[in-house]
Amino acid sequence: MIVVPAEMAPFIDVADLTIWDGGDVAPIRQARFYLPSYMAGEWAFEVMRDLADLEVCQLPTAGYEHALAHLPPGVTLCNAAGVHDASTAELAVGLMLTSLRRLDDMARGMPRGEFLHDRFDALADKRVLVVGAGGIGQALARRLEGFECDVILVGRTAREGVRARADLDDLLPEADVVVLALPLDDSSRGMVDARFLSRMHDGALLVNVARGGIADTHAILAEAGRLRFALDVTDPEPLPVEHPLWRAPGVFITPHVGGNTTAFLPRIGRLVTDQVRRWQSGAPLSNVIVS
Amino acid sequence: MIVVPAEMAPFIDVADLTIWDGGDVAPIRQARFYLPSYMAGEWAFEVMRDLADLEVCQLPTAGYEHALAHLPPGVTLCNAAGVHDASTAELAVGLMLTSLRRLDDMARGMPRGEFLHDRFDALADKRVLVVGAGGIGQALARRLEGFECDVILVGRTAREGVRARADLDDLLPEADVVVLALPLDDSSRGMVDARFLSRMHDGALLVNVARGGIADTHAILAEAGRLRFALDVTDPEPLPVEHPLWRAPGVFITPHVGGNTTAFLPRIGRLVTDQVRRWQSGAPLSNVIVS
Repeated sequence: MIVVPAEMAPFIDVADLTIWDGGDVAPIRQARFYLPSYMAGEWAFEVMRDLADLEVCQLPTAGYEHALAHLPPGVTLCNAAGVHDASTAELAVGLMLTSLRRLDDMARGMPRGEFLHDRFDALADKRVLVVGAGGIGQALARRLEGFECDVILVGRTAREGVRARADLDDLLPEADVVVLALPLDDSSRGMVDARFLSRMHDGALLVNVARGGIADTHAILAEAGRLRFALDVTDPEPLPVEHPLWRAPGVFITPHVGGNTTAFLPRIGRLVTDQVRRWQSGAPLSNVIVS
Repeated sequence: MIVVPAEMAPFIDVADLTIWDGGDVAPIRQARFYLPSYMAGEWAFEVMRDLADLEVCQLPTAGYEHALAHLPPGVTLCNAAGVHDASTAELAVGLMLTSLRRLDDMARGMPRGEFLHDRFDALADKRVLVVGAGGIGQALARRLEGFECDVILVGRTAREGVRARADLDDLLPEADVVVLALPLDDSSRGMVDARFLSRMHDGALLVNVARGGIADTHAILAEAGRLRFALDVTDPEPLPVEHPLWRAPGVFITPHVGGNTTAFLPRIGRLVTDQVRRWQSGAPLSNVIVS
């Protein structure tokens, strides 16, 4: 049986889906192909140990560490790389424009009727460093093409159109905007530290649409004011109500909403449709993490 | 003499500029080519009647009604069409993303440490109607190319790639976002009225980066909540502190900051450099409003 969450079912063009509506887990027990809910709790992965016939767990997220810990032997695990690229890349543009043009200050001034006219930064003419040349970084670069800014993609290693992460020391001082769009792993954890930020010029903007753990929160707090920050992800997350980052100068925070938009359902639907058809016809699956 | 404001002078690549620093008006008196300040008051145009040698008034704005009223006979008036396109078009994208993805609500929630995670609209997959197919409309369409949305340009009359304003009745119900990027004139004044808004579907977004007078404020207030609004221009403007539009549901307001950004100085500099060279060599000027 192919078990999918109710909200995703209408977008999956496959016959004989078993729809899980969030209630009784009995339908999940029969799963041979299992698509957990988006934003599912630990439970949705622990349940895999009770699924005697499970062959494939297709995640609706790009991250997979939470599923890996509960994956029974012999089960294939696939992630949803690509599904969140459009939504996350457009949020990065929204964060850049909000912070550069002070739309956050204007929103906060509205209840007091504050008409905050002044000359602020445009994105036009800026040099933008996109750190991460994978799906999100490339989707962001495509979106920035029409904005009259200068975009440099930075990947793990240099290749055509991509600079190497090792060159960041030289690239950072020239950047007006630095966007983090790379995976969290041993090479990126804590990468944005006091030294990294010290290479950025006064008034430059750091945008994080990747993972909170890539940037050191104490380093951000120490530079807030000299630099600007627009962060969809933080460490810790969710950010506690009393955390000083909420009220640090020049910091704009959104609550990890990079991927969770209306763009999600049609895109997960297309991926899962394709994956189920591959699985049914014995073709190799895409996005395989463990097989 | 070529009289230019101090802030623009470094961007104008022409010898022997006379720089007006905002103080004594004596330097302006000798002007043969006059570039008024940006955001200049009425005075900067009234002064033209005292400029015996004036040949050209080059405005730093696209709007020109305020100068026309004081233009002495025989003086050529040019506007700055094109100079604000980049900045205004990118603000339109910023307003769309801010409103669709609720970045304004998130900014307002920050002082209280509110982590407002939920699923909101993406720009991806949306149908965007750009009303106004001139410089700003085209600059906006170029910027939207990478966003996986469907963009329809609407001009005064139909042509290749542009639908006619007369088709709006049919186009509005299918639009998720309508952006106003057309000039204010007799044909557009009050165009967005109760009937226009009633054609838009529940939850659709109206963005105005053109002029406040194109949209009827009472009609906006009546539809706020059913529709969303992101307005860089309003009627009246500046919006009084106590005006209900500041606190209407689903309305985001910015204080007419479409053009006034860091993008302005290099672009006005390039235009004026070209215009002065044309004038000095006897070539026809661009952007002529009255000659």
